Amino acid sequence: MPRHKLRVIPLGGLGEIGKNMMALEYGNDIIVIDAGLMFPGEEMPGVDLLFPDISYLLERQQNLRGVVITHGHEDHIGALSYMLSRLTLPVYSTRFTRELIAVDLKQRGVKASARLNVVTPGSKVALGSFTIEMFSVCHSIPDSVGLIIHTPQGVVVHSGDFKIDYTPVVGEPTNFSQLAALGGRDVLLLLSDSTYVELDGYTPSESLVRDTLDRIISEATGRVIVTTFASLISRIQQVLDVAVRRDRRVFVTGRSMKEIVSMALKTGYLAAPAGVLCRLDELRDLPHHRVIVLSTGSQGEPTSALVRMANRDPRSQVQIIPGDTVVISATTIPGNEAVVSKTTDSLFRQGARVIYDKLAQVHVHGHGSREELKLLLSLVKPKFFVPIHGEYRHLSLHGDLAQSMGIPKDNVFVLENGDVLELGRDSGKVVARTHAGVIYVDGLTTGTLDDVVLRDRKLLARNGLAVVTIAIDAENGKLAGRPRIITLGFVDAGEEQRLLEKSQDVVLAALDHGRRRLGEPGFVDTVVKDSLGRFFRERIHRHPVIIPVVVEAGRAWRKPTRQEA
Amino acid sequence: MPRHKLRVIPLGGLGEIGKNMMALEYGNDIIVIDAGLMFPGEEMPGVDLLFPDISYLLERQQNLRGVVITHGHEDHIGALSYMLSRLTLPVYSTRFTRELIAVDLKQRGVKASARLNVVTPGSKVALGSFTIEMFSVCHSIPDSVGLIIHTPQGVVVHSGDFKIDYTPVVGEPTNFSQLAALGGRDVLLLLSDSTYVELDGYTPSESLVRDTLDRIISEATGRVIVTTFASLISRIQQVLDVAVRRDRRVFVTGRSMKEIVSMALKTGYLAAPAGVLCRLDELRDLPHHRVIVLSTGSQGEPTSALVRMANRDPRSQVQIIPGDTVVISATTIPGNEAVVSKTTDSLFRQGARVIYDKLAQVHVHGHGSREELKLLLSLVKPKFFVPIHGEYRHLSLHGDLAQSMGIPKDNVFVLENGDVLELGRDSGKVVARTHAGVIYVDGLTTGTLDDVVLRDRKLLARNGLAVVTIAIDAENGKLAGRPRIITLGFVDAGEEQRLLEKSQDVVLAALDHGRRRLGEPGFVDTVVKDSLGRFFRERIHRHPVIIPVVVEAGRAWRKPTRQEA
Repeated sequence: MPRHKLRVIPLGGLGEIGKNMMALEYGNDIIVIDAGLMFPGEEMPGVDLLFPDISYLLERQQNLRGVVITHGHEDHIGALSYMLSRLTLPVYSTRFTRELIAVDLKQRGVKASARLNVVTPGSKVALGSFTIEMFSVCHSIPDSVGLIIHTPQGVVVHSGDFKIDYTPVVGEPTNFSQLAALGGRDVLLLLSDSTYVELDGYTPSESLVRDTLDRIISEATGRVIVTTFASLISRIQQVLDVAVRRDRRVFVTGRSMKEIVSMALKTGYLAAPAGVLCRLDELRDLPHHRVIVLSTGSQGEPTSALVRMANRDPRSQVQIIPGDTVVISATTIPGNEAVVSKTTDSLFRQGARVIYDKLAQVHVHGHGSREELKLLLSLVKPKFFVPIHGEYRHLSLHGDLAQSMGIPKDNVFVLENGDVLELGRDSGKVVARTHAGVIYVDGLTTGTLDDVVLRDRKLLARNGLAVVTIAIDAENGKLAGRPRIITLGFVDAGEEQRLLEKSQDVVLAALDHGRRRLGEPGFVDTVVKDSLGRFFRERIHRHPVIIPVVVEAGRAWRKPTRQEA
Repeated sequence: MPRHKLRVIPLGGLGEIGKNMMALEYGNDIIVIDAGLMFPGEEMPGVDLLFPDISYLLERQQNLRGVVITHGHEDHIGALSYMLSRLTLPVYSTRFTRELIAVDLKQRGVKASARLNVVTPGSKVALGSFTIEMFSVCHSIPDSVGLIIHTPQGVVVHSGDFKIDYTPVVGEPTNFSQLAALGGRDVLLLLSDSTYVELDGYTPSESLVRDTLDRIISEATGRVIVTTFASLISRIQQVLDVAVRRDRRVFVTGRSMKEIVSMALKTGYLAAPAGVLCRLDELRDLPHHRVIVLSTGSQGEPTSALVRMANRDPRSQVQIIPGDTVVISATTIPGNEAVVSKTTDSLFRQGARVIYDKLAQVHVHGHGSREELKLLLSLVKPKFFVPIHGEYRHLSLHGDLAQSMGIPKDNVFVLENGDVLELGRDSGKVVARTHAGVIYVDGLTTGTLDDVVLRDRKLLARNGLAVVTIAIDAENGKLAGRPRIITLGFVDAGEEQRLLEKSQDVVLAALDHGRRRLGEPGFVDTVVKDSLGRFFRERIHRHPVIIPVVVEAGRAWRKPTRQEA
């Protein structure tokens, strides 16, 4: 009998799409699966990135045996730089994933001394009490894997991000044989990708996009600009294949697209027949019907190649010409709808014909739909089930799906980040909650999320601010002249002057009552905030942030400058 | 021969979904079609509403003959309050629309003296050189119409917002007979709804939702909470119908839902069999399987009934109980994705089963898909075509569709707000651009959009601010003590103190060079902004807004208080 329970501790990726990180703990051994980042939404203005909170790991450094990465997307590798600059532990991944990790660590200035181990699917890695075996899965990036983890309590299967694609364009189809081989043995736990649990049926094969791309490119009389995710190598391969078939040449633009295409060519994940890729100077000599431009920008990223084209940015290597066909071969990630929509409209305005997912099958998802999730459940037949990788509604629906496949309700755990699930061979229980907050990156600052800072930012954004300078005569303790008020972002220029003069009167009236000595600066602060706050609220229905600056001044109180009232 | 050209001037709703307004001008006669508002996106923090710019109309007041409203949605009636408080002109609409306009004008404090005329579809209204005839169309609100406008240059058909539904639940199917009667005559111009031009085929009938609702409600063992748009009377009717069939009673919650249901019952647009609607006290005595709650909140509006339930707001009349089924019988309007998603997740977390459009057909759109747009084009056979009501991509795609239906390219005008299109019997041309900006409502302020205010707000939101108070000794012109710096929203509390002390040093070093007299306040401002700006940029990669406050003070420079450095 095993001496310890198996502890399953999600540190990120549950109740959100992003910053995936899962810890498995047995006795004194901890392994970590994935270390991803997340991009913040509009509700966190000024925040650049989010990382999982790794304090659980920092407190148990001596027990950490390694971090295993399922694939090279940023929501699975993007927090490694943060983690490896604070913890020393070996990293295990497939080869393509390792290349992307190395690039990411270098860009973020983490020493290359990190031990990045390459693992071949099928081989085994022993990490303390755990033995890990990777199995190939199909996803929207090469060399993706799921994990078969042998623990003293039984086998844990982690799906990674997966779909089932019998005709993938690059790499291996999802490898059922390793999973099927487990069929005889008891699988203790399945952790499975919930992203597309809302979709019925099967996610279509990547090869379906080929026909659409071929039709669009063969019908286009002008240039074709294809934008997709830089790491979606299979899509890029299809563009190269169609280019060869339709006698077009391909020009690659956008920094990340160039970098990844070059890396994938070197490592053999992408195959470009000689002469199909061309340089900028060659592009200029080609007739339009022989040109394909491959570019970044499918998410409307402000500095991407496509957005520069859409905005007629003179720095862009390619400018839109009426008659161009633009193919957005991607899905819009939730949160990017507005910028993608704006980019699309700008391209139309310039006379391009834009083809996107609503108009033609120019993209297929990288995650499995309900039937695929059911197939995995029925193949693995786990005792316990924990849905991972999804918003709470996805996890909840995936939990229901598992129950519909015969897993008892008590064996399905819809967890949240920070839950500590303990599993024995026969029963499981959430025994604790650990700290699993958010680490935010804001400029060069990396730290815990300060709600006050975010609250202030939102308040400033919605209401603007007023800085009120009150001078108190150092000798007699009375007001020395009129208050000065500077505002930012809360009234339009036309009404500003009049409003500011009235607001000065309000402060004067509140402070100068009887022209007696003013009280303590703290008291003056409060009077200014209260009186002005009420005035703006009643007058313009706004709640600007009011910052009183109280100074004790000599009589030589300077006149306001132009930009102040 | 007509003496003038017909002028078509879109003032809102082209290149955007919202604030629809179209002017038609012939000689000295102007009519306006619709007067809608728009809700701003995240890029306009603090802005409450947007209205079309009506300066074209204000400059030609004496020529205005009336405003004709196609239906009662806010993007078609919401700017009437703004317009009617600045212009005197009669309003023409169907009866249900009139009721909604009256409520809206009252809420916004516009005098009831506005002449709100009710028009019956089929009858004619003469407005100067124009004669207007309304025809019934199906849309997601009762009493929607399109317009047949007789002008000296020929007939103009305005589709309104429409779909083709042969089995509508409330009101009339789209009336082809009036349009077909035009078939013999020449139609000069078709203005047609472009919202769903991206969708192939036909938009399903409203009656399709009935089966889904019936299945969900009959299968639910607990309470069912249905949320939809308050003005989607046909959906509300279906909920009442299913309630009767399944022996449930309906409790209505949410201010706007209550108001509109009550109005629709009074005016006969909604039929509730006796006893089906119940009060809060009756609700409490009913077993769960006999309860339906009808509520607002499908767009995640913070103060709506559903969001209060999702957040366990103690003020909510209804609290979620595990076992509740929540049906979100609506589509998410672009821009609301994040809040709707958060609301859904919160409902799941509380143990509700939530059913939304991705999981079942609980909603159908109110706008026609491509085949319906083609049907209208082929029925009306216009000489000229102007796509309306859509983002630029929708207008562009609708223009292509019209060409594919045989309208010559030169007769299709993809316009933008402010374009002045002149039409004769044989040719048309955009002859000018008029001012068609945006009027924004921010608290009680209504005015033109000041880019500086918005830029400042975004800057503040992303970077926060630093107020730097510099005291200059009134006698010797030198610095009187250390600068004081107050920051808001740009560093987290942990690092703040150290950073502020260093930033004081930076200002001191920049100003106190040689301890000579300081220059003009304007010069001091610049030195402070430059030196601190550089410091924050290099140190924390941030660009806070820096507000220097320069005061000439006596020697009694007060010590900083706690909240300042």
